[in-house]
Amino acid sequence: MEADKTVETSINIADTKSKSKGKAPLSISSKTVIEPSPKRGVKKGLAIGDFVLRLCAMAATTGAAVTVGNAQQTLPFFTQFFQFQAQFNDIPTLVFFMIACAIVTGYLVLSLPFSVICIIRPLATTPRLLLVIFDAMMAGLTIAAGSATASIIYLAHNGNPNTNWLPFCQQFGDFCQSVSGAVVGSLIAGALILFIIILSAFALKRS
Amino acid sequence: MEADKTVETSINIADTKSKSKGKAPLSISSKTVIEPSPKRGVKKGLAIGDFVLRLCAMAATTGAAVTVGNAQQTLPFFTQFFQFQAQFNDIPTLVFFMIACAIVTGYLVLSLPFSVICIIRPLATTPRLLLVIFDAMMAGLTIAAGSATASIIYLAHNGNPNTNWLPFCQQFGDFCQSVSGAVVGSLIAGALILFIIILSAFALKRS
Repeated sequence: MEADKTVETSINIADTKSKSKGKAPLSISSKTVIEPSPKRGVKKGLAIGDFVLRLCAMAATTGAAVTVGNAQQTLPFFTQFFQFQAQFNDIPTLVFFMIACAIVTGYLVLSLPFSVICIIRPLATTPRLLLVIFDAMMAGLTIAAGSATASIIYLAHNGNPNTNWLPFCQQFGDFCQSVSGAVVGSLIAGALILFIIILSAFALKRS
Repeated sequence: MEADKTVETSINIADTKSKSKGKAPLSISSKTVIEPSPKRGVKKGLAIGDFVLRLCAMAATTGAAVTVGNAQQTLPFFTQFFQFQAQFNDIPTLVFFMIACAIVTGYLVLSLPFSVICIIRPLATTPRLLLVIFDAMMAGLTIAAGSATASIIYLAHNGNPNTNWLPFCQQFGDFCQSVSGAVVGSLIAGALILFIIILSAFALKRS
């Protein structure tokens, strides 16, 4: 008796919505979820994998941003006017890298609730599509930041005699090491986000 | 009579296959295609958009690879032992950029037949999923190449006084201009491939 009443109420709400907006009522999709489906378990597994990968990517980008932000090295010798010091804001690319990693971390935190919705309702497509769109943008941003910094750090390690750009990693070894680690972290995060997109494609597939 | 015979034959084939491999027969999906579906037109439109975007991305990566490969500038003055010349293989990042753009162009050419299959059979999911997987990898490669070169070209334009890396674009202006154009092209191609992935997600969505 109680259950019947609830169903009727929800149908009424859906009806009102579909009249006012001219859209298909949401209750149809929730009805599909209630129906037993053989592929529902697979989709739920994919959604849980998505959530775990999101946490891993978040850890990687957080680590990368914090590492670069804290990378600082002061050489033990100095002249009368100048102290030799390396910091992330000496190189504009590293500033971009840190901001990009922070943005991606923020996005991943905000995306976790949507990922949870996908676990609870494995057959819902709207939150999944939203996640795919923003994941694609964030994957681009993460990979762009990682590879831009990678090319700069390669230059810092090896230099380029053709353009007279000398390497500075012999002097600032610790600084270079920290930044290289952060680059690896951000590229791993980028690969994970691309993998999340592929998982989402499998989850969206018509069963 | 003729049509009935054909259908029976195809069912027989499907039956044999499903017995030998334990998989769902392919004929079910082709049967779905023959059935009139209200969402089929939308999926077909998405598939055609995918094909057109693929052609655009191909043009962009081809242009980028050719531009960087041909970017060469010789200064009008020279010393007794040395002639001032800039070429793409003076900078390792540009070599990586050219190879990456060539790989992506090759992939996009090879992906066109699959895209055509998706136009002919808008409801088939297997070619679409294959495309999503490789598109994701190639999007990563394109964006990585573009942004690595972008950070080097930024350095060539502006230099970095903190690390004593001097700019050389005042001398080699034409060279820098060509490479900058190629970078823009490759980043546009990367964005297009990400957009293709989003389109594929919409095409895979259960209607």
